[in-house]
Amino acid sequence: MTQNLKFYSNLMSQPCRSLYIVMNLAKIPFETVTIALREGDHATESFAKEVNSLKTIPSINDGGFKLAESIAILRYLASKSSLLVRWYPSGARMRARVDEYLEWHHLNVRSPLSGYFVESWLKPRYKKQPPNEAALERLSSSANKSLDLLETVWLAQGDFLIGTDVTVADLWAICEIEELTLTSFDPTEGRPKLAAWMERVRKATNPFYDEAHEILWNIRKKSSRSQL
Amino acid sequence: MTQNLKFYSNLMSQPCRSLYIVMNLAKIPFETVTIALREGDHATESFAKEVNSLKTIPSINDGGFKLAESIAILRYLASKSSLLVRWYPSGARMRARVDEYLEWHHLNVRSPLSGYFVESWLKPRYKKQPPNEAALERLSSSANKSLDLLETVWLAQGDFLIGTDVTVADLWAICEIEELTLTSFDPTEGRPKLAAWMERVRKATNPFYDEAHEILWNIRKKSSRSQL
Repeated sequence: MTQNLKFYSNLMSQPCRSLYIVMNLAKIPFETVTIALREGDHATESFAKEVNSLKTIPSINDGGFKLAESIAILRYLASKSSLLVRWYPSGARMRARVDEYLEWHHLNVRSPLSGYFVESWLKPRYKKQPPNEAALERLSSSANKSLDLLETVWLAQGDFLIGTDVTVADLWAICEIEELTLTSFDPTEGRPKLAAWMERVRKATNPFYDEAHEILWNIRKKSSRSQL
Repeated sequence: MTQNLKFYSNLMSQPCRSLYIVMNLAKIPFETVTIALREGDHATESFAKEVNSLKTIPSINDGGFKLAESIAILRYLASKSSLLVRWYPSGARMRARVDEYLEWHHLNVRSPLSGYFVESWLKPRYKKQPPNEAALERLSSSANKSLDLLETVWLAQGDFLIGTDVTVADLWAICEIEELTLTSFDPTEGRPKLAAWMERVRKATNPFYDEAHEILWNIRKKSSRSQL
């Protein structure tokens, strides 16, 4: 890893927050390049050419090596430096358990939860479109199924998703769940283990957890006031 | 890895086929336990207890260590044996490139393509429900966007998705794309690079590619005859 790792990011994005938190916890030096999502800076041809041809964030540039996809970036950084090993264990079975969650995450947590957020919050605000009720119902049903599995399977045995301490599995999961704070969907309702786990992950990863979520919580505060 | 690796699988499942092909290419010894998906054998409580609490396949049991999620299984097997290194390279940058695809895969290839397959083919046959036209339109639009990115970004430079030889990125991608053979959606239409790549991957991975897809092609043959 070079000393001038560039991190193309916007903390409104869930996987950007996960990566931001773990890189800070691990004390990996990086330089943030904030990408204005609302202005569509990631969707331009110059972004595609210079940063990431898939037009997504997070993305990195490590001494000329460009890489997209938050979990691929995490794995690449872990292969280059031992600083991440506490959060992404290197033993075959422990790493496999973390990987099992990180793979399950995409279609079971990221897809329905971010889908619900986009449909219920983002579209009405930025596209001036009312939420599609059928889509909301489908997405909340999928989200509830996965949140139930987090409560009853992933959190059945221990304090964290994998083992006895916080790992990147917790970080990728919680940043998707925290995004729902802007919507009327309460993921912790009827899920005491999930609620306690969220508090535990926050405490174990602060001050970076709060730093990463400041932008989200500021929007929530403003929204609450405008509803008074 | 133990000598009696158990592979819980059904070759009607795309990720089961990807894993089956690469384990055979790499000469990893395994014993297949076929799970009857149509009878819902994976959804039972005994399956959850004995095989995989997430109730999904593929799943493995390696000397008592149980693991789900095809790509997590691939990574675990690669960490235990050098047999897979030709298809899942170990160098930091090449592995990162393959990982970048494997992460992008979930929401961009697996989600819309398998979603389209389920809506247009599986539901009408097994749930006796007509396809939801709005869902089909949404899914085919997402599928076309991703297939275009495979044609214009992933296959822009070379003969395979990553580098100059077949990797697991090609295998996980192609098994999702091949599933569309049972539907009226032709992924290669207007995509000459994708069509040539599919032929190239088939040749590079036979006889296991054909073995893995025999079940799918037999169903296609029967469907074609019934339409005469």
